[in-house]
Amino acid sequence: MEGHSKLSINQYTTKMKWALREAVEGYARHGIRGISVTRDTLVEIGLKRASQLLNDNGMHVSGYCIGGLLTTPNELAFRARIEENLKIIDEAAQIDAECIVFVAGGLPEGSKDIGAARQRCLAGLRELLPHARSAGVTIALEPLHPMMCSLRSCLTTLAQANDWCEELGGGDEVGVVVDVYHLWWDPNLEREIERASGRIAAFHVSDWLTDTSDLRVDRGMMGDGVIDIPRIRRLVEAAGYDGYNEVEIFSENNWWRRDPDEVVRIVKDRYTQFV
Amino acid sequence: MEGHSKLSINQYTTKMKWALREAVEGYARHGIRGISVTRDTLVEIGLKRASQLLNDNGMHVSGYCIGGLLTTPNELAFRARIEENLKIIDEAAQIDAECIVFVAGGLPEGSKDIGAARQRCLAGLRELLPHARSAGVTIALEPLHPMMCSLRSCLTTLAQANDWCEELGGGDEVGVVVDVYHLWWDPNLEREIERASGRIAAFHVSDWLTDTSDLRVDRGMMGDGVIDIPRIRRLVEAAGYDGYNEVEIFSENNWWRRDPDEVVRIVKDRYTQFV
Repeated sequence: MEGHSKLSINQYTTKMKWALREAVEGYARHGIRGISVTRDTLVEIGLKRASQLLNDNGMHVSGYCIGGLLTTPNELAFRARIEENLKIIDEAAQIDAECIVFVAGGLPEGSKDIGAARQRCLAGLRELLPHARSAGVTIALEPLHPMMCSLRSCLTTLAQANDWCEELGGGDEVGVVVDVYHLWWDPNLEREIERASGRIAAFHVSDWLTDTSDLRVDRGMMGDGVIDIPRIRRLVEAAGYDGYNEVEIFSENNWWRRDPDEVVRIVKDRYTQFV
Repeated sequence: MEGHSKLSINQYTTKMKWALREAVEGYARHGIRGISVTRDTLVEIGLKRASQLLNDNGMHVSGYCIGGLLTTPNELAFRARIEENLKIIDEAAQIDAECIVFVAGGLPEGSKDIGAARQRCLAGLRELLPHARSAGVTIALEPLHPMMCSLRSCLTTLAQANDWCEELGGGDEVGVVVDVYHLWWDPNLEREIERASGRIAAFHVSDWLTDTSDLRVDRGMMGDGVIDIPRIRRLVEAAGYDGYNEVEIFSENNWWRRDPDEVVRIVKDRYTQFV
């Protein structure tokens, strides 16, 4: 029985109520050993104390959120983002994160040039990879759902993430995130997961609600929506992935409002049924 | 100067206020010669009168909305949808529509089997094509934005629509719709439009609003969003398309609430600037 040994919870799932200390101790209390850490809650208590806290609770970091946002055409702003990402790499190394979750960035304000945004992001990645390599950190490219293209991510499909990985060359310092919420609709999903073999750095789960009312913060708990999660899990495992299954639920009007202990209990229950 | 000779308006753009007669006469009054007809407004006045009305006003039908919705696993319901689609083909022939806009259908209630939904829809198409061929009607497969996958369309990309066309074989009775709203985010758009050469049956325009608040009915007027429409228009024209440029705006809280004559005036203005 695998039980919950591969379950990780992304802090966003309980973030509205739990800071990093409460999350680490809370998940640990429920017997969960994986966590995806959001950067602002780490900065809040400081890198050293965060690292100590994770160690003391035997908690593994399945992902560090987020790096990227590299599409600005403004040179000064771009340099500042590169500097920020270099720090993020160091932080990820310090907390021994499996990967940095890399979100490309959307269209810069006033721009309609999606091609330029994509090229800018790739140029930024090229600058970051040497540092990631020497730090022993994986930058995991996460394609987001196309409905988030304008605001958050000009990287929209796993095919594109695979293309970028090949274009960037490199080894373990670059990988991809497979998130069922962002990718379940993709007719080429099977083929592209197979193609991502050896570079899947994280697997994220939640569910797509048929009556989704918001483009960013209305994700469902596993089992409440239409995604055949076990099918996609089988595909990533067939592609060689054997890391954490990370639950990440952005849910402004439902899960974020509940008692986090209740949320974690339900996550554990749904995980065994629907993941 | 091309002016507005290739402009068509989809009735949905003014549908909340104008029935078919008002739309045909209204668009004609503004010097527009293309219309995409929604089926319920046609049924309302009857096929013969609708046909007469269109002829009397010298109006060309760039599309007939909608056919499809063929994903149900229930045999009786599926047969009923096939019968309905056969009627839709006859109606499209009668009003000399350039195409039927074909929407695949979403996941059947309670189902998580997107593969089965896709196969069901393809099976339905195979049944419809002989009748479309003999009626001289083109069934134009419209990939909808992935955010509509669950509710409306398991057909989500132009690549998939091209794949289906090839799988179905056939000639002019099957084609594709290129709608900038549904496809602008696609990293393979250029390649897939080129691949669709010779089978693009319609080109739809509207805009993606950065602050989109609804998954179905919050489309923007051309120029109010982030889509580089002229770029995509150049691509479809390079692929040989020379039909109407059809404006289709679903907008519950803005455009649908305005005076339709004002909407049409603004459509004409924006068309010359942003399409």
